[in-house]
Amino acid sequence: MSNSLFDTHEETLNHAIDAIRTRGYWSAYPEVPSGRVYGEKAREDGLAAFQGRLNRPFEIDQPGEIGMVGEEQSPYGMKLGITYPKPDLDLLLPVVTAALPAWRHASVEQRLGVCLEILHRLNQRSFEMAFAVMHTTGQGFMMAFQAGGPHAQDRGLEAVAYAAEAMRSCPSTARWEKRVGKEETVTLDKRYRIVPRGVGAVIGCSTFPTWNSYPALFADLATGNAVVVKPHPGAILPLALTVEIARDVLRSEGFDPNLVTLAPDTADAPMTKSLATNPAIRIIDYTGGSDFGTWIEKNATQAVVFTEKAGVNSIVLDSVDDLRAVTGNIAFSLSLYSGQMCTTSQNIFIPRDGITAGGERVSFDEAAGAIVKALDWLLGDSARGAEILGAIQNEATVARIEQAKADGGTVLRPSTPVANTTFPDARVHSPLVLRVDAADERLYMREMFGPIVYVVATDDTTQSIDLATRIAREQGAITASLYATDPAVIEAAEEATAEAGVPLSCNLTGSIWVNQSAAFSDYHVSGGNPAGNATLCDLAFVANRFRVVQSRIPVGQPAAV
Amino acid sequence: MSNSLFDTHEETLNHAIDAIRTRGYWSAYPEVPSGRVYGEKAREDGLAAFQGRLNRPFEIDQPGEIGMVGEEQSPYGMKLGITYPKPDLDLLLPVVTAALPAWRHASVEQRLGVCLEILHRLNQRSFEMAFAVMHTTGQGFMMAFQAGGPHAQDRGLEAVAYAAEAMRSCPSTARWEKRVGKEETVTLDKRYRIVPRGVGAVIGCSTFPTWNSYPALFADLATGNAVVVKPHPGAILPLALTVEIARDVLRSEGFDPNLVTLAPDTADAPMTKSLATNPAIRIIDYTGGSDFGTWIEKNATQAVVFTEKAGVNSIVLDSVDDLRAVTGNIAFSLSLYSGQMCTTSQNIFIPRDGITAGGERVSFDEAAGAIVKALDWLLGDSARGAEILGAIQNEATVARIEQAKADGGTVLRPSTPVANTTFPDARVHSPLVLRVDAADERLYMREMFGPIVYVVATDDTTQSIDLATRIAREQGAITASLYATDPAVIEAAEEATAEAGVPLSCNLTGSIWVNQSAAFSDYHVSGGNPAGNATLCDLAFVANRFRVVQSRIPVGQPAAV
Repeated sequence: MSNSLFDTHEETLNHAIDAIRTRGYWSAYPEVPSGRVYGEKAREDGLAAFQGRLNRPFEIDQPGEIGMVGEEQSPYGMKLGITYPKPDLDLLLPVVTAALPAWRHASVEQRLGVCLEILHRLNQRSFEMAFAVMHTTGQGFMMAFQAGGPHAQDRGLEAVAYAAEAMRSCPSTARWEKRVGKEETVTLDKRYRIVPRGVGAVIGCSTFPTWNSYPALFADLATGNAVVVKPHPGAILPLALTVEIARDVLRSEGFDPNLVTLAPDTADAPMTKSLATNPAIRIIDYTGGSDFGTWIEKNATQAVVFTEKAGVNSIVLDSVDDLRAVTGNIAFSLSLYSGQMCTTSQNIFIPRDGITAGGERVSFDEAAGAIVKALDWLLGDSARGAEILGAIQNEATVARIEQAKADGGTVLRPSTPVANTTFPDARVHSPLVLRVDAADERLYMREMFGPIVYVVATDDTTQSIDLATRIAREQGAITASLYATDPAVIEAAEEATAEAGVPLSCNLTGSIWVNQSAAFSDYHVSGGNPAGNATLCDLAFVANRFRVVQSRIPVGQPAAV
Repeated sequence: MSNSLFDTHEETLNHAIDAIRTRGYWSAYPEVPSGRVYGEKAREDGLAAFQGRLNRPFEIDQPGEIGMVGEEQSPYGMKLGITYPKPDLDLLLPVVTAALPAWRHASVEQRLGVCLEILHRLNQRSFEMAFAVMHTTGQGFMMAFQAGGPHAQDRGLEAVAYAAEAMRSCPSTARWEKRVGKEETVTLDKRYRIVPRGVGAVIGCSTFPTWNSYPALFADLATGNAVVVKPHPGAILPLALTVEIARDVLRSEGFDPNLVTLAPDTADAPMTKSLATNPAIRIIDYTGGSDFGTWIEKNATQAVVFTEKAGVNSIVLDSVDDLRAVTGNIAFSLSLYSGQMCTTSQNIFIPRDGITAGGERVSFDEAAGAIVKALDWLLGDSARGAEILGAIQNEATVARIEQAKADGGTVLRPSTPVANTTFPDARVHSPLVLRVDAADERLYMREMFGPIVYVVATDDTTQSIDLATRIAREQGAITASLYATDPAVIEAAEEATAEAGVPLSCNLTGSIWVNQSAAFSDYHVSGGNPAGNATLCDLAFVANRFRVVQSRIPVGQPAAV
């Protein structure tokens, strides 16, 4: 088999490797859903392809099928009506395992080439993927395109780059020559083989099915493992498309397509626990709720486990130059995808006696009011509001808004349904903003996933930082945001958040938001607090997915390597 | 604080980094216990220092002491009579945790410098360490010097080199500049902090207390963690000396010596389970028996766990050029330290109808007999025999020899006590060699630690390889050895052992033995079968001991980094 795919994409890989080393801005896949980039008919074709999937079985010729499942419902209203082959793991896993040796024997370059080609084809299908992501997750179209398409592909490429770095850190051969006596030298030829751990399970989530799964999928595949993709029952299509493309590339390169398989289930008959604890599963990547993630960490001890769970993210408001620029930025970040990003802030800590803004004193109520005002302005235009908010993925999230209101706190801004003229049945609810006191820990010191925001009155910024980092240490946090004009405050926050394992964004205004995490530069989830045990991506994310097994033989022996 | 220690040792580190990349022979610390290398009085001084430790308390000024413990008994006869401070973990761990921030704030170079200086001072104390290792483990003097001193130091340095590589894989700052519109660019300054996981526990074994612990100790320390060293109750002194030296270096560099502490216990009141599951312990490195190692893997889920357990190692005898050279090599490897190395072979698979040797047919009985003859010759000279065999560390190992004999198999060579003229009370027993059939799985398909050897009659070499790799997959294996003249047989064995995660040594004769594992070149334990989940050393061994936590701020903001 040739390395032609590797040759085709080598420059992309080299750029990616350079990017993870230097961590400046770089992207391989254009994020603008433009006809000039993707072809004038790309959007139209993508939409047609998506629509062509609806209301029929999604065929995958993988073994062990025991019926079709599928109950996806677009948060924008319609049922997708797609069914997918459900596998019997006892039939599927032996076939997957049997596919491993040939994949392991492929050269590193062959495997990298296959991964890069899959990413390339995924990129070409970005519009189709965008509609699939939009109508499973509820993301607005623009976010579904970017986060579900190019940004997810960038994250996948980043994992491939780390996998290349980790695999190349060991030479494939060495000559070992040791003087063991005055007249005697021992000379051994050594060979180092990359041996994958085996079959990996990638457990996807309902909100970012591709973005959160691609790093794992490509890290596993690049390092020689097979991948069983277990999508969330509410967001199967984006991963089914991914699996289909991966299988096509594998097949056309002469490999067994069963190296990548789909294992969909239903909410009523979940299979994740039995998959995660199956002895054949040697690697698990999980994205989703904290409780189940912790269950996997504690119970799937036969596997190497990587988790990206949830957390409680904070904004600490201390002092600003331009309050309007700050609250505008905060309002957008709170509204984007209705607070359903794992990077969205939930708690905004503001000193009880207010902050300084442009050198002037601004009371707590004025500061909180400015955030509410910015939300009202942003969402006041319902077309803009609907695109930013997207739709609520899960009905339980809507119920949680009601629950938050009932649990307590002063309503500073009610959550209201927002009309979506294109999709009248879309499940759209604007952010609820509650005012609570620092003492009301039972209210804000818990994860309340969705468009629910607590503005917390604290004694001072020191208490704000203490609370934000305590939550991170105890419950996990994926982002922290600080607005402060005093370098000493910034320094204190950087130190405290670093210790709590939360990346800190300072003084973001304009077109950059705390919820954004850029491939090749931003580490997503630190792995250093309960929000997850791993990061996207670093060497630790890839280096333990394979082992190096060596052989050694005296030089000149018949099978000298 | 200066980087003068780093400057002093930087060349050594750079050599080590080059060595792990190229994996040819290299060593930083001379393995020859020669006065010309270590000073004419080094042996005498080392012996005096060791003797000066006996029959008195070993003082360590660490907090939380709740009495003195110590019941070490030299396998060569005498009681050491040393007691060590036993800590109350509830008192010790908070103090250790409090020492972390300053260590985390030190530069990478400062931490590397401290590690390199500790290794340098350990090297200078190699003779003292040799006697400490000899009289706790039972190793012969030469092995105790080499494996307990320079080779262990090399393994520690190797871990420091990997830690340097992993930490340097991320820049400390980056500028991220993204065009977000026709007229707008977002420019962020990013800072990446290395944040250690916290407090690591290093659980040592009784046979190689330094060699198996140094990689973990130095990997933890270099990446900013603290280390609680938990020695085996039978081999405390080598690690107490190590802790003392580490604390001296830390103190003299202005760091809190409690970054490295000792937690000795007794066989009657073990503390390993409570240490391993203590929430403050974030990293565990374990070397020892498989049952307890597996318990830690399953129960210490609050920590990142690295294990080096035990396995059942095999030799497959197919065909040789020179039977005498081969059996001489095998006999030495079986005798060295009385088979108490985790790399020693237990099972020798020989086809029932014999092998070819120098082109001639040699029967099974002749081949097995040649191994016995080589053992008899090697151990026939009792001075040589005593030095090679060392002494049996644990009385239970002596009982196991009896048990093996009682369990079954034909005795080809009885185990006999061997006189040690220097230490008449030494516990010395030569290898027991039993002949069994491939069908007698209950006898040889289990770990029988110590000088116990099964010669297994198989249908053919294919069955030999199958059995050797099945044992590896099911029970773990750390080494495999093959003697074959046919390249096709070598290729088949390489493939099968790679898949089973066992490093293979082919056709070793002369001054190189299957039990040897050389730092910077040989990976010790693959991490790919039940003999352990990690290897010494690779990137996976270090990269997850720390996290990178970032901060980002628009360029030009007050505290731009």
